[in-house]
Amino acid sequence: MTTNYSIDDIHGAYKRVKDHVHQTPILTSTIIDDLAGAKLLFKCENFQRAGSFKIRGATNAILQLTPEEQKRGVITHSSGNFAQALAYAARQLNIPAYIVMPENAPKVKVDAVKGYGAQIRFCKNTQKIREATMLEWQNETGASFLHPYDNRNVILGQSTCAYEILQQVEAPDCIVVPIGGGGLISGTALTAHFLSPKTRVYAAEPQGADDAWHSFHQNKIFPSENPNTIADGLLTALGEHTFPVIQKHVDDVLLITDEEIIEAMRLVWTRMKIIIEPSSATTLAAVLKNKSLFANQKVALLVSGGNVDVNKLPF
Amino acid sequence: MTTNYSIDDIHGAYKRVKDHVHQTPILTSTIIDDLAGAKLLFKCENFQRAGSFKIRGATNAILQLTPEEQKRGVITHSSGNFAQALAYAARQLNIPAYIVMPENAPKVKVDAVKGYGAQIRFCKNTQKIREATMLEWQNETGASFLHPYDNRNVILGQSTCAYEILQQVEAPDCIVVPIGGGGLISGTALTAHFLSPKTRVYAAEPQGADDAWHSFHQNKIFPSENPNTIADGLLTALGEHTFPVIQKHVDDVLLITDEEIIEAMRLVWTRMKIIIEPSSATTLAAVLKNKSLFANQKVALLVSGGNVDVNKLPF
Repeated sequence: MTTNYSIDDIHGAYKRVKDHVHQTPILTSTIIDDLAGAKLLFKCENFQRAGSFKIRGATNAILQLTPEEQKRGVITHSSGNFAQALAYAARQLNIPAYIVMPENAPKVKVDAVKGYGAQIRFCKNTQKIREATMLEWQNETGASFLHPYDNRNVILGQSTCAYEILQQVEAPDCIVVPIGGGGLISGTALTAHFLSPKTRVYAAEPQGADDAWHSFHQNKIFPSENPNTIADGLLTALGEHTFPVIQKHVDDVLLITDEEIIEAMRLVWTRMKIIIEPSSATTLAAVLKNKSLFANQKVALLVSGGNVDVNKLPF
Repeated sequence: MTTNYSIDDIHGAYKRVKDHVHQTPILTSTIIDDLAGAKLLFKCENFQRAGSFKIRGATNAILQLTPEEQKRGVITHSSGNFAQALAYAARQLNIPAYIVMPENAPKVKVDAVKGYGAQIRFCKNTQKIREATMLEWQNETGASFLHPYDNRNVILGQSTCAYEILQQVEAPDCIVVPIGGGGLISGTALTAHFLSPKTRVYAAEPQGADDAWHSFHQNKIFPSENPNTIADGLLTALGEHTFPVIQKHVDDVLLITDEEIIEAMRLVWTRMKIIIEPSSATTLAAVLKNKSLFANQKVALLVSGGNVDVNKLPF
C-alpha cells in the first residue's frame, strides 16, 4: 500500500487525457444554494462521454499501455459505468475491449457496451465466477486487465476531474465526492493535495453500504458485505491502491440514508433540470445533512454520472 | 390581425430583456445527430429562469407598462408555465402578480407560483369562469392583464430566444419550435424573418391537438377542441396576434404522435442527461419523423421548458 504520487503525475495525467474527454461544465442553482446555506458548484460528469467520469481513468490507463499491449486490447469485469467507459475509450483509441458482465446485468447497460463496439461474455454474478471467466478470456486474448478503480493509472485518470474544477473556478473550500471503490475520491484528493492544499475533501457514502466509513475510522479495509442502497455505483469496497490515499488525504466520510439521496436527486432533477444518478446525489444529500460543516463556503460537488434507467425511477 | 413588426422591434425586445433572463446554452449530441442524419442544436430553455422560455415574454411585456401600471401589477389566468414565469418576472421587477388558477391545477405548479410570491385565486376550470374570476379581480386591483401568448409584447419577448441562437451559432438552416398558442414560434419566425431570412421555421404539433395544423392549412383560426396529448403545454389554440405571423412566416406545421414524443423525450433524457418536458420533445420527434426534410442540415430545436412532475412520468 503506497501513496507514492507526485505533482508531475497529476499534471501528466491531465495532459494525457484532456483531448480525449469533455471538459464538463460547472452548473449552479441559487435555489439549492439557499437551501444549503452555501455556494455549491456542480461539476457535471453526467455530461461526460459515456455518461460518467469513468472514461477519464479508462483513457489514462489505456494510454499508459505499450503499443504492443494496446494492440492486444483491454479486459475488465463490470456491470456498471466502468464497462461503458472502457468500451467507449477503447473504441476511441481503436483497440479491442473485452467485457465480462453478469448475466443479469440491466439490458440498458449491455446495449450501451455493445453499442460502443466491445465484445461481451456473460457469466453468473459471483465475484469468483466473474474473475474466472475473465482470466480464461484474458489467456485467450492476451488483453491487459484494467481494474475499475484499484489501479494507479485509473486513479490518476480520475484526478483530472478535480484538475478541471481548479481551472474553472477559484479554489473551492471543499470538494464532496461519492465513495464506492474510491477511485474518484482518491484522484480528487491527490489533485487537491498537490494543487490546492487548503481545499478539504469529503466522501459521501450511503448508510446501506458503509464499508468505507468503517475502513476510514478503523484504519483497515472493510469488505462490502450485502450492501443495500439505491446508489448502485457505490456498492464496492475500497482497494489496496485507493485506501491509503483516502486515509491520508480525505478529511471525513459522511453517511446519508437512501431517503436523503432520493430527496437530493429529486431536488437536482426538478430545480436544475439535469439527470444525475443516485450515486451522484449522495454529495448534495451530505451537504444538506451537514449544513454547519459547509456554511457560507464554496463547495464543489462531483456529479459523477447520469446513467439512470428511466424506466426504474425512485419517484 | 396584423404582422406589423419591424427589425427595430426585434432588437429593442432583446435589449430590454437580456439582462433579466439567462442566455441559455446550446447543447449537442453526436449520437442523436447520427440518428437524425442532421446537425442538431438544442437551445436549452429548460435551464431558463422559472424553467421555460415564458419568462422572456412576461418580462418584455411588464417592462412595456408605464410605471403607474407596473405599480398596480399584472394579472393572468394560467395553470402552466406562463403562470410561473409571470410570477417570477413580477417578483424580479418588484411588482404585484395576480394569478387565476383552476382549482385542479397540479400542486407542484401551485407551489412554484406561490414560491415566487404571487397571489393566487382558484376557480372552476372552464374558460368562462376563469375569465370572469380574472375580470373581477382585475377590477379590484387595477392590474394589467397579460395574455400568455396572444399579446404583441409577449411575442416580441419570445423573439429573444431565437435572437440568442443567432448570436451563439452561425445561421442554422432551420429552427423547429413547438406550437401551442403560437407565442414562441411567432417570436422565432419574426427574428428569423428580419435577421436570418434564409432560415426556415417549422412548427411541431401533437396529432392529438392539431388545431394549428388545420389553421395553417385552411387559413383561419381553428379552436382547440378536446385536445388529448401528453404535451400539456400545447393544448391552446392560435390567437389573433399569433396566427397572422405564423401564416406569413412559418414554413410548415409537422404533426407527431404522443408515442413519438415520448420516444424523443426518452432519447434526450437518456443520451443528453437533461430534463425536457413533453412539449419540448415534439421538435426532435418531428425531425426524426421527417428525416429527408432536414438531412445534413444544421437544425436548431427550441427546448421550450423542463417543467415536468417527476412523480408522473410516461416511462
